[in-house]
Amino acid sequence: MKNPTAAMLVIGDEILSGRTRDANMHYLAGQLTDAGIALAEVRVVPDERDVIIAAVQALAANYDTVFTSGGIGPTHDDITADCMAAAFGQTIDVRDDARDILQAHYDKSGTELNEARLRMARIPADATLIDNPVSSAPGFTIENVHVMAGVPSVFIAMVASVLPTLTGGAPLLSETLTVHRGEGDIAGPFGAIAEAYPSLSMGSYPFQKDGRYGAHLVVRGQDRAMLDEAMGKLSEAFS
Amino acid sequence: MKNPTAAMLVIGDEILSGRTRDANMHYLAGQLTDAGIALAEVRVVPDERDVIIAAVQALAANYDTVFTSGGIGPTHDDITADCMAAAFGQTIDVRDDARDILQAHYDKSGTELNEARLRMARIPADATLIDNPVSSAPGFTIENVHVMAGVPSVFIAMVASVLPTLTGGAPLLSETLTVHRGEGDIAGPFGAIAEAYPSLSMGSYPFQKDGRYGAHLVVRGQDRAMLDEAMGKLSEAFS
Repeated sequence: MKNPTAAMLVIGDEILSGRTRDANMHYLAGQLTDAGIALAEVRVVPDERDVIIAAVQALAANYDTVFTSGGIGPTHDDITADCMAAAFGQTIDVRDDARDILQAHYDKSGTELNEARLRMARIPADATLIDNPVSSAPGFTIENVHVMAGVPSVFIAMVASVLPTLTGGAPLLSETLTVHRGEGDIAGPFGAIAEAYPSLSMGSYPFQKDGRYGAHLVVRGQDRAMLDEAMGKLSEAFS
Repeated sequence: MKNPTAAMLVIGDEILSGRTRDANMHYLAGQLTDAGIALAEVRVVPDERDVIIAAVQALAANYDTVFTSGGIGPTHDDITADCMAAAFGQTIDVRDDARDILQAHYDKSGTELNEARLRMARIPADATLIDNPVSSAPGFTIENVHVMAGVPSVFIAMVASVLPTLTGGAPLLSETLTVHRGEGDIAGPFGAIAEAYPSLSMGSYPFQKDGRYGAHLVVRGQDRAMLDEAMGKLSEAFS
């Protein structure tokens, strides 16, 4: 069975300028792998309306599920929600269900739900809200796209809200053999073993550490018995 | 004057599976910003021939310069060089200039330049080699695409080889004001100031640290005097 596929769209000038180092991609990649969903592409785009719309349309058409991060706060540069509505031909306005969540949150701290904060209740008409237990302002799901915050603590909480609703495939298993030889000596036998197991995916990731060369040989697949057999062959070849 | 644009293509199953956390994107973003080149898009794709070819063609057509990282080692899963040749309709084979570099390198350590290592001398016919002072195996430039290693120490060295050959624009200046208020209180005045300086780009990046809320207000642009003036307005508004 083919695993479901996912893509991620990271929205934010701050990532592309080098100001901020994205953390959400690595986190989501690990979570999806554990759930048996193959993260097949990531795009990082700036805070530009046309670019965001084109990117989300392309990814939503090509993959089963899309996750976005960034651009759903109260300031003028947060344009993700409006872009998503435009990308899927929906109207967008302050929605009562989202406003109620914000109102309850700000009432607790005696903070005014002003015009800027109300921007976070702008949700496309047919979208479903994603729970945000950290700071209340919801994300939303529109068609096959889950629109989430860029702040890592909130992103993580929203992934936890969304993941149980998705249907995964068999978990993608992975085993690693670390070999302290140059990749040039590893490549021949490794390639032959990879060829003998076409349903497994094998990759070599070289490293240099404390002046020693080596490579992590990673074998991925869904069949535990076959994975173990291939790892046995690798251990034998590089013992 | 418009700054030149760049895109990055990160090639590697290990990033998408969450096994490895990419470091090269953040590094390149900072280097390009300093050089006055706008990193406008990043894509991360798996080690799949058709996907790599389609992605590099799209990015090379849309941006002035493209940087790739990953997939140029000696093992069977290193298919980037062949993909680049196919993407730009060039033949590819072991090239004498690249072989000489590898031969000299391996002669020094008495290591055999075997068939696997020779794969690293496979370079598209019309490409120009990129110097690799770390481990000798060269990268290459094909049309407007710079093809570089994924190992961070080698990637950094190759960026250092390539960057001086590129024409940048005026450096993208950036200033940050940290405000310890909620974004909902910041958004109104901040949006008004952003509107007053349309040639500057202003973004708000919220944080929660030690139980305190706040946001980094970042102003970017090329005109130092205008940047300083806008920062003055921001300081006044949030003092």
